[in-house]
Amino acid sequence: MRLSQFHLATVKEVPADAEIASHQLMIRAGMIRKLAAGLYTWSPLGLRVLRKVEQIVREEMNRAGAIEMLMPSVQPRELWEETGRWEKFGGQLLKIKDRKEQEFCYGPTHEEVITDFARNELKSYKQLPINFYQIQTKFRDEIRPRFGVMRAREFLMKDAYSFHLTQESLAETYEVMYQAYSRIFTRLGLKFRAVQADTGAIGGNASHEFQVLADSGEDALIFSDGSDYAANIEKAEAVAPAIARPAPAATLQRVDTPRVRTIEDVTAHFGVSADRVIKTVLVRGKDGLVALCLRGDHEINEVKAAKLAEVPDESVLASEEEILAATGTRPGFIGPVGLPDSIPVIVDRSAAVLADFICGGNANDTHYTGANWDRDARITRVEDIRQVVEGDPSPDGHGTLRIARGIEVGHVFQLGKKYAEALGATVLDDQGKKQVMLMGCYGIGVSRIVAAAIEQSHDDAGIIWPEPMAPWRVALCVINPKNAPDINAAAESLYNELTARGIETVWDDRGLRPGAMFADMELIGIPHRVVVSERGLAAGTLEYRARNAAEPSAITRDELFELLG
Amino acid sequence: MRLSQFHLATVKEVPADAEIASHQLMIRAGMIRKLAAGLYTWSPLGLRVLRKVEQIVREEMNRAGAIEMLMPSVQPRELWEETGRWEKFGGQLLKIKDRKEQEFCYGPTHEEVITDFARNELKSYKQLPINFYQIQTKFRDEIRPRFGVMRAREFLMKDAYSFHLTQESLAETYEVMYQAYSRIFTRLGLKFRAVQADTGAIGGNASHEFQVLADSGEDALIFSDGSDYAANIEKAEAVAPAIARPAPAATLQRVDTPRVRTIEDVTAHFGVSADRVIKTVLVRGKDGLVALCLRGDHEINEVKAAKLAEVPDESVLASEEEILAATGTRPGFIGPVGLPDSIPVIVDRSAAVLADFICGGNANDTHYTGANWDRDARITRVEDIRQVVEGDPSPDGHGTLRIARGIEVGHVFQLGKKYAEALGATVLDDQGKKQVMLMGCYGIGVSRIVAAAIEQSHDDAGIIWPEPMAPWRVALCVINPKNAPDINAAAESLYNELTARGIETVWDDRGLRPGAMFADMELIGIPHRVVVSERGLAAGTLEYRARNAAEPSAITRDELFELLG
Repeated sequence: MRLSQFHLATVKEVPADAEIASHQLMIRAGMIRKLAAGLYTWSPLGLRVLRKVEQIVREEMNRAGAIEMLMPSVQPRELWEETGRWEKFGGQLLKIKDRKEQEFCYGPTHEEVITDFARNELKSYKQLPINFYQIQTKFRDEIRPRFGVMRAREFLMKDAYSFHLTQESLAETYEVMYQAYSRIFTRLGLKFRAVQADTGAIGGNASHEFQVLADSGEDALIFSDGSDYAANIEKAEAVAPAIARPAPAATLQRVDTPRVRTIEDVTAHFGVSADRVIKTVLVRGKDGLVALCLRGDHEINEVKAAKLAEVPDESVLASEEEILAATGTRPGFIGPVGLPDSIPVIVDRSAAVLADFICGGNANDTHYTGANWDRDARITRVEDIRQVVEGDPSPDGHGTLRIARGIEVGHVFQLGKKYAEALGATVLDDQGKKQVMLMGCYGIGVSRIVAAAIEQSHDDAGIIWPEPMAPWRVALCVINPKNAPDINAAAESLYNELTARGIETVWDDRGLRPGAMFADMELIGIPHRVVVSERGLAAGTLEYRARNAAEPSAITRDELFELLG
Repeated sequence: MRLSQFHLATVKEVPADAEIASHQLMIRAGMIRKLAAGLYTWSPLGLRVLRKVEQIVREEMNRAGAIEMLMPSVQPRELWEETGRWEKFGGQLLKIKDRKEQEFCYGPTHEEVITDFARNELKSYKQLPINFYQIQTKFRDEIRPRFGVMRAREFLMKDAYSFHLTQESLAETYEVMYQAYSRIFTRLGLKFRAVQADTGAIGGNASHEFQVLADSGEDALIFSDGSDYAANIEKAEAVAPAIARPAPAATLQRVDTPRVRTIEDVTAHFGVSADRVIKTVLVRGKDGLVALCLRGDHEINEVKAAKLAEVPDESVLASEEEILAATGTRPGFIGPVGLPDSIPVIVDRSAAVLADFICGGNANDTHYTGANWDRDARITRVEDIRQVVEGDPSPDGHGTLRIARGIEVGHVFQLGKKYAEALGATVLDDQGKKQVMLMGCYGIGVSRIVAAAIEQSHDDAGIIWPEPMAPWRVALCVINPKNAPDINAAAESLYNELTARGIETVWDDRGLRPGAMFADMELIGIPHRVVVSERGLAAGTLEYRARNAAEPSAITRDELFELLG
């Protein structure tokens, strides 16, 4: 591509709402333009990258036996009523009324539509397993769209849905998709991790997130330094300490502690470390408040808390009023000793092995020291309710847990029968009996990958694309072409040969000064830069620089082609 | 592709709402499934065809120098207010409110968004001309969606928009697009015509529709049998008759004609042909009623009428009450003789050369005979206000006009400055002066092409695809594979060689009986069918049948490959 025939529009100013590197760089490179909050136009440059991602996703989905189709973006309310999600999906569902006052939504996902398709099209177990996918525009009405295309409202997604007669068949396709996703992110040239994820309210049997590693990532990823264990922070198990609880040594004492409310206050006041303190969190249970007790240095894991039998699907902290009403005590002074019997006390595994601990006094401005479980405080049940921390033992028994940051770009999920049951999607089995199908779903955020790749790989000068995602592999720059017609001829010959070899090349023939030209090519992240100049021509060499190299070097034309493969 | 690895689901029943052949056949072939009124899921089979069309469109747009990008489907109200189309576009505009009560629409077209993009991105005449395009999902809230994807609400469109400093540049790109469109429809293997179209209320200088020829087409296309003149019926000019008006020979007589209201009544009553009668149509003008006089055998052309200086942008017939109030006469008896002076009389070119004609008496239950222009009836102006009819002379002076039916699949349009002016899209010219850009727009209904191709080419057994659009070029069928393992081996070897040669082949390995298999392959319109059978194997031949051939024939493997090229 000759750049003069293209539309490249890099810009200097970055709008104030561009908070993260990928957003800033996509604006500066002119890859995207904001139309409205969470709505972006993909410029020709941006679209080149987006299409490369899309194509690799498509190729690997096809290779994995998935079959492409295309569903409407606009979906009727009736279908969403059948699964109960018209209400439950919440504010992200963009609801639409047509001219006849019929209600629709702009699909944020397609479980309803594909399951409706499947219940009409699939009649027999002989048609199973089958895996349908599409690459299509979706809309989620984010309450605070931000980070450019990272969390846009309108975005491009690949979503796949598989249908099965048996759990074994679902598990098999799930594994095929897991492998396909690994190939996709490997081919894209991204550093990523697949981590176990929680299956949440949907239930189902297995779920993995594919996370692009980036320091700026919103998600905390937990992995073992001694095995391939990896999970997201919601899912990662905090195993029970290998030690038994010591016998009580101290006597229980109530101490006046005015203004000592937080864990920091307590450790300062008593001169102990936080792992000697029990903190007690009261949440709204299904039937009154529930106390969750953790070590002072640990944090509650809300997903784990929400799975407790006593707690509803979404855990919510009790308000100050509720706590006062139930205990007569202000938050900050609650503890397990002497809590009303009506409040279940769920104790975290690590907290359960403490002895002689400090905790709230269950009366304003007091704490207990020398407290002990059983002797002084009731344990309803010991559970894993905390977030893991760096240094915890790995749940698989091998190594120690570490934490990395990631950006979720893919998700595979064994849905089980949830949607097929709601919509009555059945097939006849080999006995002629109706069976509800099992489903898997498999999503990739195609447009989000573009931003995630930039978060993972950029420097002060701009984007550093992995080669498979770069808009072009090679940037060809010519120094002062007007001064020497030979140079232009040499550049043209080089351009023609690169193109003939199928090496995607952009020839910057806009007539800019070298500095401006180089800055643009670095900003838009072209992996290889080749400069044709008078001096080089005289020496029979080209100036070559890899995007991530510190300095250019002089190489011959043959060396260049060898390097580009 | 082995069909057992695909999802083919042909059906016997056609829903009652499938009125036309393409809709019926797309449902029967399982290409599309209705989700809701005007919303269709493209099955894997349907999508294969859609993507072939899309790819040919993309290749030719790129070849023509257009640059692909991607705009959001959801567009903010504010932009549409700037052009006044938020109200003017009418009920087809699907309006949406987001969770913050901000208003948007699901884009039915992208003039506003691209012009906004251009006003931000284009600063200098040096960036012009430039031609952006996208292939993207659009929505028009049709009041009566029907004919399947032919007039769906959600549909796939290629839309391009070019920007220019001068009219000459616009005309040049327009010509390039015209040629690109011709290549696209030629490559798709469609019989089509480019016809002049009216530029309507937008104004602009030129417009052509690309019409796929089909007897079932909604549009009437006018073309000359003696030249390449072609226009749609709204645009086609009815030229002035070559003859001069004869001098009056008869005297004016008012005749009682109770119950003689229509042209048919008049010709029967007086025993004359309709071309001896003047019919007078009253429309609402900008300033009172306007009389339009035509020959009795001609029909008014509303687009032409709406262009008269006296008539607003949309011409509307006067109501019976309005006619009574203005003339004291009921409709059916209006005529040019003695009409109130306040009513302008616009006379069609063919009507203006009549002498001694019959017309309404301008009094209930009367007509005039022997009426003549000037002597008896006022002519305000002679204009072309009628629709052409078969047999009219071609406006270019060569040949006679004929009428064909077509389906509009493409449209090129010189928009001029309308949108750029409304949105203030300017560039600096070589004098450093701000200039409003000129625009062209160029649309192709990608999903509609699929239906149009079927309308053009099908038979009782199903679809007959042009090769470039077929889901696969070759269908490979095996007779009784279970009875003879040799046959399967022969089929597999043939399949592998076809695939290795890049000939897209579907191997029907579903194990159906030959009749069912052949019926499916004919229904889905595969151009070439090859049958491997025991008998053929013994004779060293394959059974070959082209989709549109009456009978199969025996050919050798070599002959097959030669035939497929």
